[in-house]
Amino acid sequence: MIGLIRVFTTENPDILEQHGRIISEFYGVPVLSRCIPDQPLGIFDEESEAKALPKIIALGQSMEEEGCEVLVISCAADPAIDQLRKSVTIPVIGAGSAASLVALSYGQAVGVMGITEDAPAVLVQLLGSLIVGYNRPEGVTNTTDLLTETGRDKALAAAKALQEQGAQVILFACTGFSTIGLADVIRRELKVPVIDAVEAEGMFAANRYKQLRN
Amino acid sequence: MIGLIRVFTTENPDILEQHGRIISEFYGVPVLSRCIPDQPLGIFDEESEAKALPKIIALGQSMEEEGCEVLVISCAADPAIDQLRKSVTIPVIGAGSAASLVALSYGQAVGVMGITEDAPAVLVQLLGSLIVGYNRPEGVTNTTDLLTETGRDKALAAAKALQEQGAQVILFACTGFSTIGLADVIRRELKVPVIDAVEAEGMFAANRYKQLRN
Repeated sequence: MIGLIRVFTTENPDILEQHGRIISEFYGVPVLSRCIPDQPLGIFDEESEAKALPKIIALGQSMEEEGCEVLVISCAADPAIDQLRKSVTIPVIGAGSAASLVALSYGQAVGVMGITEDAPAVLVQLLGSLIVGYNRPEGVTNTTDLLTETGRDKALAAAKALQEQGAQVILFACTGFSTIGLADVIRRELKVPVIDAVEAEGMFAANRYKQLRN
Repeated sequence: MIGLIRVFTTENPDILEQHGRIISEFYGVPVLSRCIPDQPLGIFDEESEAKALPKIIALGQSMEEEGCEVLVISCAADPAIDQLRKSVTIPVIGAGSAASLVALSYGQAVGVMGITEDAPAVLVQLLGSLIVGYNRPEGVTNTTDLLTETGRDKALAAAKALQEQGAQVILFACTGFSTIGLADVIRRELKVPVIDAVEAEGMFAANRYKQLRN
């Protein structure tokens, strides 16, 4: 079983399983989704990140005990990934590193889209000079802002601007873009390949999971 | 279509298509295989590598012109990858970097197996301290040596030694291991995950190819 960690708190099973559902449908693998306790707003600054780290580690450890064979930290910032890798015996995949590694496999110029002020550190570290630009859709600080028609147009404009800067591929530095299905909109409208962070983490997780079944 | 470059010369279509066939069967994608001219022994030293580089670039360019949408250099040393990436507009995947990126996605200790004296530079560069050891099966300098029962036992012994050095995953730094189906033998006998270089390059290539079909 693939264990997927959401780094915020929700009681709503539909929201909890948003990423796991995408991965199950895309790759035909079972995913168990769990979230960290007592952080309904997730990680949004250094203090909230520091509070989340021990929770992510404890959750990952308990999911390994429950029988998970692969863990996924489903957040583009890869919070607690190094610490969790040291705390369990199974592989730990992060959304941010997974998306970056897919981009590295192609070796093409990458335009990064996110909702934070800057691209997550893990992306910059892995991709270095392959990144030709980072763009946050205008006025968007929350993925729900992208659900309106205006939001969708802003997202397309952001991707287009990155293409004009020389991006040969668009990379999502936010898993919230997956939830709203933005990759297919950009692929269809702009005919540009998109590396979706949830699809990327799912690809590596499913590959490892299937191998265990051979 | 995925274009796959073999970095040696063969007139035998069965041999030419060994890697492409694995990828087509594994991922359900079409692969066109081509080889470079006039180098039946492939790349085995600096001089033969220097001779091969312009041929790989010319072949990749002509395969793009023929309609390939993704290129794969199917050799664990990733020969000519940087130059070919600069010479075409489509993504170029290399067997060595692909396998390394899969290992990076897990973050686990890697034991590398190959038939050369040292691990290819691209692996060392990408994996750094994740590599716990490199091992060449005793007496093996050619993958056909592995086709005998003795060869198979030597390969298992090499993998086992890497596990004893702390490897949590075995990575093949030789595409010849794919041709003889060694990954499944090691997975079955030693219950250790194996990153097979042809499976890895195929995973990234198929992912990109399928995205273009959405």
